[in-house]
Amino acid sequence: MKSYKDLSREELLQLHAKLEAEYEDAKGKGLKLDMSRGKPASSQLDVEMDIMDVLTSSSDYNTEAGMDCRNYGIVDGIPEAKKLMAEMMGVGSADNVIVCGNASLAIMYDTVSRSMTHGVLGSTPWCKLDKVKFLCPAPGYDRHFSVTEHFGIEMIIVPMTPQGPDMDTVEKLVSEDASIKGIWCVPKYSNPQGYSYSDETVKRFAALKPAAEDFRIFWDNAYAIHHLYDGAQDEILDIISECEKAGSPNMVYEFASTSKVSFPGAGIAAIASSKANLDDMRKAMTMQTIGYDKINQLRHVRYFKNLDGMTTHMKKHADIMRPKFEAVLKVLDGELGGLEIAQWTTPKGGYFISLETMDGCAKKTVAKCKEAGVVLTGAGAAFPYGSDPKDSNIRIAPTFPTLEELCEAADLFVLCVKLVSAEKLLDSVQAEKCAV
Amino acid sequence: MKSYKDLSREELLQLHAKLEAEYEDAKGKGLKLDMSRGKPASSQLDVEMDIMDVLTSSSDYNTEAGMDCRNYGIVDGIPEAKKLMAEMMGVGSADNVIVCGNASLAIMYDTVSRSMTHGVLGSTPWCKLDKVKFLCPAPGYDRHFSVTEHFGIEMIIVPMTPQGPDMDTVEKLVSEDASIKGIWCVPKYSNPQGYSYSDETVKRFAALKPAAEDFRIFWDNAYAIHHLYDGAQDEILDIISECEKAGSPNMVYEFASTSKVSFPGAGIAAIASSKANLDDMRKAMTMQTIGYDKINQLRHVRYFKNLDGMTTHMKKHADIMRPKFEAVLKVLDGELGGLEIAQWTTPKGGYFISLETMDGCAKKTVAKCKEAGVVLTGAGAAFPYGSDPKDSNIRIAPTFPTLEELCEAADLFVLCVKLVSAEKLLDSVQAEKCAV
Repeated sequence: MKSYKDLSREELLQLHAKLEAEYEDAKGKGLKLDMSRGKPASSQLDVEMDIMDVLTSSSDYNTEAGMDCRNYGIVDGIPEAKKLMAEMMGVGSADNVIVCGNASLAIMYDTVSRSMTHGVLGSTPWCKLDKVKFLCPAPGYDRHFSVTEHFGIEMIIVPMTPQGPDMDTVEKLVSEDASIKGIWCVPKYSNPQGYSYSDETVKRFAALKPAAEDFRIFWDNAYAIHHLYDGAQDEILDIISECEKAGSPNMVYEFASTSKVSFPGAGIAAIASSKANLDDMRKAMTMQTIGYDKINQLRHVRYFKNLDGMTTHMKKHADIMRPKFEAVLKVLDGELGGLEIAQWTTPKGGYFISLETMDGCAKKTVAKCKEAGVVLTGAGAAFPYGSDPKDSNIRIAPTFPTLEELCEAADLFVLCVKLVSAEKLLDSVQAEKCAV
Repeated sequence: MKSYKDLSREELLQLHAKLEAEYEDAKGKGLKLDMSRGKPASSQLDVEMDIMDVLTSSSDYNTEAGMDCRNYGIVDGIPEAKKLMAEMMGVGSADNVIVCGNASLAIMYDTVSRSMTHGVLGSTPWCKLDKVKFLCPAPGYDRHFSVTEHFGIEMIIVPMTPQGPDMDTVEKLVSEDASIKGIWCVPKYSNPQGYSYSDETVKRFAALKPAAEDFRIFWDNAYAIHHLYDGAQDEILDIISECEKAGSPNMVYEFASTSKVSFPGAGIAAIASSKANLDDMRKAMTMQTIGYDKINQLRHVRYFKNLDGMTTHMKKHADIMRPKFEAVLKVLDGELGGLEIAQWTTPKGGYFISLETMDGCAKKTVAKCKEAGVVLTGAGAAFPYGSDPKDSNIRIAPTFPTLEELCEAADLFVLCVKLVSAEKLLDSVQAEKCAV
């Protein structure tokens, strides 16, 4: 296809008129579709309903060590759940794991909150400091940024690359500025680009020499086993052991959950870290709760058994998700390929595709889609303070709609990208003409 | 029986020798019993196992309004769970309720933590203040005091009476000192005394005129439906509507859970308060979590259906617990009645009996019990900082052991009370003699 950038003003005018007409047509269809959030489709949830039959009134509710999961006791997770979550995260020892409630986001929030009120391993509580900053590789996960914003933590954007965050920038900032206390990372199938950190990136993270002793890497391994393909999978190094090897075992917290393995909201979540960090956390946990839901932990252990069980299970999810990702990518390739108005990622796992429009076109594109009945994640959502400096990033979440809905939504989406791009190019041509 | 106080020195010496011999005997039995925590017995958990069959792989997981409980969505609880918990707490409207995760303690902790970092309805965050204080009616619930201690909040003891906290003291302190930001209450079948607040007490709470605008009553209605008797039950006024009527709807947070209705750790927990307070909380909750475990909320709703269902269910618990309470009370009455060395409460619900030894005898009694194989709650645990000013309060938790174990434990316990009391009286007589 001919690049839009090579079109003359007249060609652009013709094109714009044609796209405008198509868009008016599309609006007439009365679509009502949602590609905004990384939600599993109902059909994905249907494949795991057996988990609800694992524990019944006649089941044995004792752990292997004989602890009754129906009663009080064990604040940091039943041993077999620690083992399962360690395997899922690729962490060597279950001793490095605490299993909590239903959401890893809650563990991250608590970890930041606890650092605010109590500091980290004896450091000054962050709420007593004049300034606390976090590095935010972006585009990234909006809810990470919401947590830090909620606590008044200043967020500094770090550019993302296909190998992970720009480590030159990370190393420089972290070593120079003691008010930088953390960095948000989604190391595997990153949200929203689907990038996985290279071995070099992980090793450079482990080798960081932060100015702040209470600097921590918030390593949200949200998509550890969320592959789309059987053969071609991304794998990352285990940050826990890399930090140990580098002599900084306390520098990282790793988070994960089964929200997108079993049920969103009814899964189990875990944190992995050094013994010192986990002991610090346990001290607060004994104030915060008498214990998490051990019955649900037991349910997950009995159902999945081990990493093999989880991997086999995740293939069923992949079989449902893969055609959706491929359908969207096919529309993007077919309709936008060669036009030079957008680039997009082709992830091998995770829940998102990330698309870059020309600068200044994201908000308008998302608004056009919405006007015609297709809801996308708000433009800018993947950046701190909801503000994309180039206004170019759009997150596509292909999992929740049915395949049929998704194709309709993707068709409308590319039409909107083209329309807004043509408008922008026309404006530039117009501006140039005026300038002449 | 003859009061120990009327015994001569010689009689006391004889008595002491006899008790000492009995104690040595008892030690020889090698008991290993635990009356330390308010845990349901396994037999109580056995009566509710049907709840595990309510949701299976073939169940409908939609709420009445059609929301799929298996997926993301709804941060503050499914409507039918709000209704159920409102009924359980005796709160008029489900709109005043948020249903969270598995533990009310976690909601209390979060509420204090949020007040520390973000203040209350726009007030200065407590962590920015020089001094924050809480009133602690005592004896009270040790974990309440742990939460406030954890956040460095100064705790002030308020004496308890059978009608609730000494309200003259509460009114005076709260109206004079703006650094007092809260008070911990267990208004019904209080932990550990089993006292229920009188209507006058509740009304005086609602009528408080605190110096601090961000003063809040932390109303832990932990034993709302935990009656031991069918006929003779305590009932308390609804603090939410009393505070509304008194023109201070924002002054109270009420907490409850099904930890001792369904399963400890696998139940559901709720907070009730004014719309303004709940909105403030929801604002933080949207950062903290994508939602709590809706499947477990649905499980509870489908199983209990409504307050009637819960009440009927709680009678089964009462049938198991009542004989245990009565057995302990029978031993206390039979062995300590008339000796004038101890007083104890006779609760009509809840999980505890509270006993007052002579001053300075609680720690020694608990230690003696432990030495002979019976673990009680640590002496002083029911007071802020774990320190009972009179060293006289002992919390008895009769629910977890079997009836047989309990009788053995109670026998040993009264023996230890007698022995330590006789020692104390001997010491006084000795001291008097020396003085002469």
